[in-house]
Amino acid sequence: MGFPRSVEALVRELEKLPGIGRRSAERLALHILKLPHPEAVALARAIRDARVETRRCVDCKNVTDAERCEICADPERASSTLLVVEDPRDVEAFERAGVHRGRYHVLMGALNPSDGVEPRHLGIEELVARVRAGGIEELVLALDPDFEGDGTALVLAEALRPTGIKITRLARGIPAGSSIEHLNRAVLQDALEGRRPLL
Amino acid sequence: MGFPRSVEALVRELEKLPGIGRRSAERLALHILKLPHPEAVALARAIRDARVETRRCVDCKNVTDAERCEICADPERASSTLLVVEDPRDVEAFERAGVHRGRYHVLMGALNPSDGVEPRHLGIEELVARVRAGGIEELVLALDPDFEGDGTALVLAEALRPTGIKITRLARGIPAGSSIEHLNRAVLQDALEGRRPLL
Repeated sequence: MGFPRSVEALVRELEKLPGIGRRSAERLALHILKLPHPEAVALARAIRDARVETRRCVDCKNVTDAERCEICADPERASSTLLVVEDPRDVEAFERAGVHRGRYHVLMGALNPSDGVEPRHLGIEELVARVRAGGIEELVLALDPDFEGDGTALVLAEALRPTGIKITRLARGIPAGSSIEHLNRAVLQDALEGRRPLL
Repeated sequence: MGFPRSVEALVRELEKLPGIGRRSAERLALHILKLPHPEAVALARAIRDARVETRRCVDCKNVTDAERCEICADPERASSTLLVVEDPRDVEAFERAGVHRGRYHVLMGALNPSDGVEPRHLGIEELVARVRAGGIEELVLALDPDFEGDGTALVLAEALRPTGIKITRLARGIPAGSSIEHLNRAVLQDALEGRRPLL
């Protein structure tokens, strides 16, 4: 017989979300059916509102509810060093850490041809234009140290080469607080290759 | 600075869903922000519609879009044996297997005091009333073989005792198609305790 039509429709919509398979979608849908009416409506409204009320910052392309995000609108932030990140969560991580007083550029993703994420989806042309507009001395590529992040860094470097801008990337090595015995080969290799003189 | 207000609101709503922590909620929210406008609206609408358009079947309490679900409305189904299940997905599993031609009773959950699921949430009084209304000869408790399912079975048996109805539960043992070497202690113990004469 199958689920009622509207339940099946909800399961299909939930299944489209990343990391949600058929079984998770069914579990979530049944949870939603058991919610008090106002809570289900609040969830639906939050989805709609977030999508409708947010846009991309005109400067850094982060999600924002204004024309320009809080960081780009802050005259105290240094504009000479631009940290290029994949995701708004990466901006949050750097802001929590308080280690970067400059500005950001948010790609909203990393290259992933099998997922259909191509250079045009990351607004690389807009980043090149931002660099060409002047005032930036260095781009620090702060992309995830994985296949997609590394591929994205290569494509970015190539696209930005004609601008003559200085491009760096985050250091790789053993993470502070870890135990060397639990680190994998790639981490140890990066740490050895990037070793620094002490004396 | 944090996420824009509407994004934070969405993350908070998503976090309330079962199995979705803060990090998953942020990941889902950012996915939703990147969706084409119509897809985000479709998801929001599906949640609202499923909650608004479904109700509980007057007989078996399964979710349905009519007064009576398809199974309860089917005069061909035997009404003497009632399979008591936790969840609409359990009904689907039995229907796919095609091993039960009788009817169901759906509790929409199992007792779980730490999650706030108490006997009154499972409509046990309504099940007792259904049994008292007559026509049912046997209740088969088809609850999950876990702590919550076992506790629910005990409470159900106690509540139904005054009706004098015959109550059984599904057999436990080694699952067809498994390898004994990979089965855990509880499964093997059930299988041994429930052993059946062959000759």
